[in-house]
Amino acid sequence: MDIQLKLPDWLSRINTEKAGTLYNRIEQRAEFVIELSRLNVEYNTGGPFAAAIFDIKTGNLISAGVNLVVPAHCSIAHAEMMAMMLAQQTRCTHTLSGCQLVSSCQLCAMCLGAIPWSGLKSVVCCARDEDARAIGFDEGDKPDNWIEKYTVRGIDIIVDISRSKACEVLKDYAKKSGHIY
Amino acid sequence: MDIQLKLPDWLSRINTEKAGTLYNRIEQRAEFVIELSRLNVEYNTGGPFAAAIFDIKTGNLISAGVNLVVPAHCSIAHAEMMAMMLAQQTRCTHTLSGCQLVSSCQLCAMCLGAIPWSGLKSVVCCARDEDARAIGFDEGDKPDNWIEKYTVRGIDIIVDISRSKACEVLKDYAKKSGHIY
Repeated sequence: MDIQLKLPDWLSRINTEKAGTLYNRIEQRAEFVIELSRLNVEYNTGGPFAAAIFDIKTGNLISAGVNLVVPAHCSIAHAEMMAMMLAQQTRCTHTLSGCQLVSSCQLCAMCLGAIPWSGLKSVVCCARDEDARAIGFDEGDKPDNWIEKYTVRGIDIIVDISRSKACEVLKDYAKKSGHIY
Repeated sequence: MDIQLKLPDWLSRINTEKAGTLYNRIEQRAEFVIELSRLNVEYNTGGPFAAAIFDIKTGNLISAGVNLVVPAHCSIAHAEMMAMMLAQQTRCTHTLSGCQLVSSCQLCAMCLGAIPWSGLKSVVCCARDEDARAIGFDEGDKPDNWIEKYTVRGIDIIVDISRSKACEVLKDYAKKSGHIY
């Protein structure tokens, strides 16, 4: 018996073809995940969220995930969780030290709670959680001053990278009356 | 491309054989998950934590999970997350309304954050988070007054059920110098 979370074909292709690709600047990494969030809406394969994991030092892409909650029948299948699980599976380890997560939106309470266990040392967010809330998504109950708490844990949090581009995808999803859960 | 999380054989057997079994009282449900946490240590298949999902009204078992972080190369594979993913896969839905999670220990920040997205309406915990911290496990940064916040969301939180029995498993794991991560 096992749990299987199947990636949509287009994302499998991107993971296969783009793994190891260099994304030098944080903005390039952000625009890559924002484009994935847009594609997830366009292909109707899940919610308007995407995330990817990069080697902090080299800038190489390790894995890319999108939100698959509804199609995968899995409330845990947020983009960030998918990206983390894929990277860990690829590297055969539960610890992604030396890695950075770039997410098209600030993390919900679950994904945020997952960061310290993942070994990730840096988290980059594009849209703010208030942008997700503005179109009806619940981000959950996060601890107060979580950015400071994570910094104390040795995890850098970088926010508002390419925020307006990320917001366009969220607004477009809302306009199309996408599933909000 | 997909993510696969394989259950140990003994747990697959329990999921197959015990699904639908009636656990009338909360204490029976708690003792079932505590026994699973003990078996996970005995069989050396993961950390000293287990969780299961039951139909609140009927008391029937839906799914059972254990901590598989190290063997599954997956920092997300906490017992509670495994139980949720299994139940959702079994029911072909991302929403477990009418269901209760019973966990051998209070939930970490990630698993706690996962609850509202899972549709679960009741969470029962055996050991306290301080009991897990006492043997070296980090429970993460949880929101202040989270029990009250979850109650407002319509999610009942019940704590300290069979706590001392659950603590015995944690202490035994620590004595055996089990992997702490």
